[in-house]
Amino acid sequence: MLLSGGLDSATVLAMARGQGYACHALSFAYGQRHAAELEAAKLLARALGAVEHKILTLDLSALGGSALTDPAIPIPEQPAAGIPATYVPARNTVFLAVALGWAEVLDARNIFIGVNAVDYSGYPDCRPEFIAEFERLANLATRAGVEGGAFHIHAPLMKLSKGDIIRSGVALGVDYGLTVSCYQADAQGRACGRCDSCRLRRQGFVDAGIPDPTRYR
Amino acid sequence: MLLSGGLDSATVLAMARGQGYACHALSFAYGQRHAAELEAAKLLARALGAVEHKILTLDLSALGGSALTDPAIPIPEQPAAGIPATYVPARNTVFLAVALGWAEVLDARNIFIGVNAVDYSGYPDCRPEFIAEFERLANLATRAGVEGGAFHIHAPLMKLSKGDIIRSGVALGVDYGLTVSCYQADAQGRACGRCDSCRLRRQGFVDAGIPDPTRYR
Repeated sequence: MLLSGGLDSATVLAMARGQGYACHALSFAYGQRHAAELEAAKLLARALGAVEHKILTLDLSALGGSALTDPAIPIPEQPAAGIPATYVPARNTVFLAVALGWAEVLDARNIFIGVNAVDYSGYPDCRPEFIAEFERLANLATRAGVEGGAFHIHAPLMKLSKGDIIRSGVALGVDYGLTVSCYQADAQGRACGRCDSCRLRRQGFVDAGIPDPTRYR
Repeated sequence: MLLSGGLDSATVLAMARGQGYACHALSFAYGQRHAAELEAAKLLARALGAVEHKILTLDLSALGGSALTDPAIPIPEQPAAGIPATYVPARNTVFLAVALGWAEVLDARNIFIGVNAVDYSGYPDCRPEFIAEFERLANLATRAGVEGGAFHIHAPLMKLSKGDIIRSGVALGVDYGLTVSCYQADAQGRACGRCDSCRLRRQGFVDAGIPDPTRYR
């Protein structure tokens, strides 16, 4: 499963554990400004009982094109129309591809990802049709797929609101104080409170009727 | 375009240049034993007129599962049935995914890869159905795809024999003495002459009726 250190993937890890899966968690140091999320991912993998946790380095900032990896592109602090500047070209395709390779090595067939089409409808690689297409690809791309085992890509948050996600996670014991969602979190993981990700997260706690444990700076 | 430093992708680069494409070449330091191929890729990018050449690091050896990235798994030196031990789980999916991200940043729509279904029929991610499926995915996964520009994945070697590939490349001026195909090439890029890749390559020169410029050790 893909574990970013944010709120969504922490919830997915708790859900998969709750369904009895032995979870192998994968994170990426991809040149993101908010590298504090990787420290959060380490804590979450341990707290939520992952079997193991790997952090792979792949410097997508070498390719540019996103506010998340290029310090010269500012993080938007106001809602805007269209696909936001924080979109990282093909990021979920890359992450799922690496997860697929690892799943094949582990002889696993279930891959979990915390994408969500409700709050982040601007990201093309968070839509259900993308996930369904990647699942088809996975079964053509691999020895495991060809030899008959079918991969399944699980995106259990796809149709949930942020409030629903938070309520589900709290019920499963997730400590959201460990998670880092902010696109410009500081080195201690403290949030700006102003970026898209912070605003959606804060509203999620309001909607869920649950106190917001986020550490703002 | 994906450029490994081997014979096939060098030929693809020459073909794409011959068709007038401005070529941005992408290689991966993925933990492969035959890292000498990356030195070859640098020389080839320059010799064949790529606009630029990037080498990204992504340590797939951290995932294991392949003779190409795990020194404990020997490179096969005899032909065998089934998918060979040199198969790297999901490698072409990962490489194409990163190439897709870069193509989107460059506002390019054409991605070239040197896969071939004739000689390497054992690799699931070298088949035409895999390439067609990845093209469908690319157009769902990206801002560029969603906004109307269609990506095209070019695999011009797909149905060529090794001999045909070599003949095509020689006609386009490729210096195959610069390429490194051997799965266990030494640090100077000299070939073993015994692995699958060496055997297919050597037979290709025989079939093409062209002297083999490979440096064997």
